[in-house]
Amino acid sequence: MEQPIAPLAQLTEQFGKLPGIGRKSAQRLAYYTLNMPAEDAKAFADSIICARQTVRRCEICCDLTDQALCAVCRGASRDSSLICVVEDPRDVMAIERTHEYRGLYHVLHGVISPLNGVGPEALCVKELLRRFEDGLVQEVIMATNPTVEGEATAMSLSRLLKPLGVAVTRLAYGVPVGADLEYADEVTLARALEGRRAI
Amino acid sequence: MEQPIAPLAQLTEQFGKLPGIGRKSAQRLAYYTLNMPAEDAKAFADSIICARQTVRRCEICCDLTDQALCAVCRGASRDSSLICVVEDPRDVMAIERTHEYRGLYHVLHGVISPLNGVGPEALCVKELLRRFEDGLVQEVIMATNPTVEGEATAMSLSRLLKPLGVAVTRLAYGVPVGADLEYADEVTLARALEGRRAI
Repeated sequence: MEQPIAPLAQLTEQFGKLPGIGRKSAQRLAYYTLNMPAEDAKAFADSIICARQTVRRCEICCDLTDQALCAVCRGASRDSSLICVVEDPRDVMAIERTHEYRGLYHVLHGVISPLNGVGPEALCVKELLRRFEDGLVQEVIMATNPTVEGEATAMSLSRLLKPLGVAVTRLAYGVPVGADLEYADEVTLARALEGRRAI
Repeated sequence: MEQPIAPLAQLTEQFGKLPGIGRKSAQRLAYYTLNMPAEDAKAFADSIICARQTVRRCEICCDLTDQALCAVCRGASRDSSLICVVEDPRDVMAIERTHEYRGLYHVLHGVISPLNGVGPEALCVKELLRRFEDGLVQEVIMATNPTVEGEATAMSLSRLLKPLGVAVTRLAYGVPVGADLEYADEVTLARALEGRRAI
């Protein structure tokens, strides 16, 4: 049997640790990386180190940033009476892409999940509570995912926030725009009926 | 709009360059990498640099190795009268896993593909021809992929090799072991009939 080539096996193993990358894909990626021009491979390696070293959490909203505060928290034009609470930095990007929201964000970096041993203390909840100390925030929009855990997180945070005198709202449920009613699941459809509005 | 975080955008772009990784996956991988412990991120980056720097082609068979010669070419127990020609280093691994083959290999690093502008000079063909100078090799097994291009490569190499007085053979075509005849394509089934053997 051929001996495995150590550096190649190691690189394959590293790729295999990434989420959604199986053994075969990891091997394909490792071979691809080997065939990259040397400067490209260096740029790839450098960008891992650089991102890991420079990207951190915004001191206010816990979104990712390469400065002390993220661009939204630094921006003067945002409505600081409104905070949208999301699970993940990618959710911030998704909401920003709508160009409809002018308030601030708060990134929890996860959901409360008792089954996986994730309690509120593992999330950025104390950073969220700190933001109500000056009494400027009037409304908190819970924009956690419409999953069981996202729902439970929204509920338990709203129990913490309501005594502070802020309005707590939740994203509307309903049929996605452009979708086919025929393929909508019953729960979504029931929620859409329940939340119907006058036209 | 939130400004993109430069190091994160850069890392996402780097992941996006890898084959089979789309925009969404690249983003997912970049976020995952950010959340790795710092030493894991460093190990990942180092393994890219290390693999790129230390892995090279075997001076005889062009397979990948971290030494001057690969383990097969270094090995004294292999049958040096037999060379199996494959497209890719992964094909060597696939054949080694059978534990049935005791000869040597030659890795072409590609197939002849006029449509993509890949001629024999872009492959390790001259390294292959050099191996017949001492007259020790008696048989060459063409184990390029059973695709149009793999087939064409096997054909054109066999035209080069036959004048050197070596036997040139091709992997057998037929139905894969464990497969269902019902789902075998006609071409494979026709080749399996054509290549039938007495039992």
